[in-house]
Amino acid sequence: MDRRIIKPSTLKGFRDYLPSAMIAREKLIDTARQVYRSYGFSPIDTPALEFSEILLGKGGEESDRQIFRFIDQGDRDVAMRFDLTVPLARFAAQHYHEIGMPFKRYHIGSVWRGENTSRGRYREFMQCDFDTIGTTSNAADIETLLVIHDLFDRLGFSKFTIRVNNRLVLNGLLEKLGLADKASGVLRSLDKLPKIGRDKVIAEMVERVGATAEQAGEVLSLAELKGEPAAILAKLETQLAGSDVGLTGVARLTELFKTVAQAGANTERVELDLSIARGLDYYTGTIYETFLGDLPGIGSVCSGGRYDNLAELFTTQKLPGVGASLGLDRLLAAMEELGMVEAASTPAKVLIAYFDANHLGDYHRVARELRAAGIASEVYPEAVSIGEQLKYASRKGFKIGVIAGDREFAAGHWQVKNLITREQATVGTTELVEHLSAMISSTQS
Amino acid sequence: MDRRIIKPSTLKGFRDYLPSAMIAREKLIDTARQVYRSYGFSPIDTPALEFSEILLGKGGEESDRQIFRFIDQGDRDVAMRFDLTVPLARFAAQHYHEIGMPFKRYHIGSVWRGENTSRGRYREFMQCDFDTIGTTSNAADIETLLVIHDLFDRLGFSKFTIRVNNRLVLNGLLEKLGLADKASGVLRSLDKLPKIGRDKVIAEMVERVGATAEQAGEVLSLAELKGEPAAILAKLETQLAGSDVGLTGVARLTELFKTVAQAGANTERVELDLSIARGLDYYTGTIYETFLGDLPGIGSVCSGGRYDNLAELFTTQKLPGVGASLGLDRLLAAMEELGMVEAASTPAKVLIAYFDANHLGDYHRVARELRAAGIASEVYPEAVSIGEQLKYASRKGFKIGVIAGDREFAAGHWQVKNLITREQATVGTTELVEHLSAMISSTQS
Repeated sequence: MDRRIIKPSTLKGFRDYLPSAMIAREKLIDTARQVYRSYGFSPIDTPALEFSEILLGKGGEESDRQIFRFIDQGDRDVAMRFDLTVPLARFAAQHYHEIGMPFKRYHIGSVWRGENTSRGRYREFMQCDFDTIGTTSNAADIETLLVIHDLFDRLGFSKFTIRVNNRLVLNGLLEKLGLADKASGVLRSLDKLPKIGRDKVIAEMVERVGATAEQAGEVLSLAELKGEPAAILAKLETQLAGSDVGLTGVARLTELFKTVAQAGANTERVELDLSIARGLDYYTGTIYETFLGDLPGIGSVCSGGRYDNLAELFTTQKLPGVGASLGLDRLLAAMEELGMVEAASTPAKVLIAYFDANHLGDYHRVARELRAAGIASEVYPEAVSIGEQLKYASRKGFKIGVIAGDREFAAGHWQVKNLITREQATVGTTELVEHLSAMISSTQS
Repeated sequence: MDRRIIKPSTLKGFRDYLPSAMIAREKLIDTARQVYRSYGFSPIDTPALEFSEILLGKGGEESDRQIFRFIDQGDRDVAMRFDLTVPLARFAAQHYHEIGMPFKRYHIGSVWRGENTSRGRYREFMQCDFDTIGTTSNAADIETLLVIHDLFDRLGFSKFTIRVNNRLVLNGLLEKLGLADKASGVLRSLDKLPKIGRDKVIAEMVERVGATAEQAGEVLSLAELKGEPAAILAKLETQLAGSDVGLTGVARLTELFKTVAQAGANTERVELDLSIARGLDYYTGTIYETFLGDLPGIGSVCSGGRYDNLAELFTTQKLPGVGASLGLDRLLAAMEELGMVEAASTPAKVLIAYFDANHLGDYHRVARELRAAGIASEVYPEAVSIGEQLKYASRKGFKIGVIAGDREFAAGHWQVKNLITREQATVGTTELVEHLSAMISSTQS
């Protein structure tokens, strides 16, 4: 045949999710959703495509170049969303009266950026954000931290640290030092602390930003304060006396650490880190970063903060808020590296062999009984050799194979094969569901 | 200030999902996923963007015109997926050896079509497909029907009908009648039966397709056979004697009805309908359509069938399969019309009032205890008046408000307000979780 075959391939920077990767991703997303929902955050969704003018100019020139933008069939200038924050701003402005304030939402969805893939970046990835908008109350900042805390706890991480800061503290210090007009330069340098170290940060503040060595030293001394949050915050209260901005930051952090402890969260997981600034313009209050104790090198896996005005480009209504974003891809890679991801490529636990064509209805009947008991079960679709069926089961990651033919049906029992230990047992039909439930519980950690 | 405000709006044919709609959509998708997974279907995902040559020419000229297609930053000719079937074909061809056959997958994702919105169509919508590929076994066809059955059962529909047919039966009849060369015309007319009625279908078959009135009458007589599947199939076996194709169709349907009954499915929900053909070229065997007993007029809410070769454009490997697609948007609209959708715009049940700023930690502690007991709970973020907080709670659809200040903490109890009945009770702190659990169980149907 002379038919042309189109080579099946994906675009550079795009990828397929095969079952094992997708099962892990779905599980992670499910846990995030459950935690967000348990706190009363509601789901929303927005279109993949927006008018270009909605999305352009929101993240600077480099971001604009990365946007997938085109003219559609109706001659509209359209673009694919590159994050979930600009769509939230547009959404909140558009539906302001319908949704009411305060408004708590989570949004889990794909975004697209034509990034340089040589840096290991993908051009399509999923974001997983939650935000509380329409309130300046510190209670929302505190809740944001509790959400992050409970989320990582529920994901099964025993060791993680949420680093918290407040931009107002940094602003207060810069005000006290007479560096308020050089704030962006100072913070840009400070942000480099983990990468280039103390001395180079000071040198940069002096040479490029125009601070004195003494001023730079004071900024670094504050940024590097470590220890009990309460003790540091008491010290800051003295140091920042006279700066309303600085003292507001101190008071908000003080309430945050106190309340988080009262709420029963593990305070060892929450650290005051005065060195984090997270960029220059967007965040205006509390800032969060989350690091994994066993893999600190991969960077923050959940970051966010408080902002003063989400949607100023779309409405005159002022919309302050606070929120954070879970780094799904980074976190999945970490969980894989830490052995926290099961390598199955099927969500089912039990494979029922298709041994005898006359019993297909029986196999399906038992499969439905198992499902009703919460045990995902598959009937193999072809009456091929048992060896071939069990090979399929092992390759896919089924835990148990069950087999019955005329002889077993006559005797009222099943052959049950543990596909991990290779042990086999004969189990009476009436005990089958209970027996398999027990086996599955014992193979789960 | 003279700043320009960008009007917040969505593109024609695109829409935002607000919380109440999104909560209903997530619930529906969750149920579908749970049922698919319980049968051993695995999730996959593919990119929103593909090379245009992968997607073009798969659904005819009209489909091609509807595709969102453009040249990306790297001068690639790219397009947004318009369904999940072509991506599955590309995926299966590309990962053939890695995924292994038979392969069962579900795929839930957005697709984009620049359709005429005047027909009430959206240009972005979600598909929810499941397929078994790499096998011609009738067991896969039977399982597909059981999945549809269990899915609608789990969604809470008491009345629904899955109509089943097999194209081989129709092909066998056309062969017997000497109409094999006119098959596509005959079936195109037959597909119009529910819309234009028997007489007009016959007239069309005679005038346009070139069948005799007698031939057309025989096709209609078969298509309109109603009754016990076993009786009809026995009759067909005689009628189609001599046509291997037709008898294979009869045998597969016979095994299907027998096995579905043995498997314990409700056979009143499964009907043999020899009039459904579902288009002309794609399906080659079993065909499924699903109708809601209380809303038959909205059409099929879950349709599918068996096909001979999924991925012939991408591989010389033959990939037969069978599957179906859940019509999410149509089904959601139906569930709303039938009062099956709860109109809450929060996933949380309990609002804990922020009554006294000194007790914020206590409110969060209790909220975390409730969450640990499976009760989604929100602490209101601002210490405004209780009236304002309860108004917020009622508007969002919370079921219960709980309130405590200094006096209640001293006395060791909470004020619990049922936001539906407006009843209020005083509940001891130690009984709070249990009391709220009981209240929530009793408000759920």
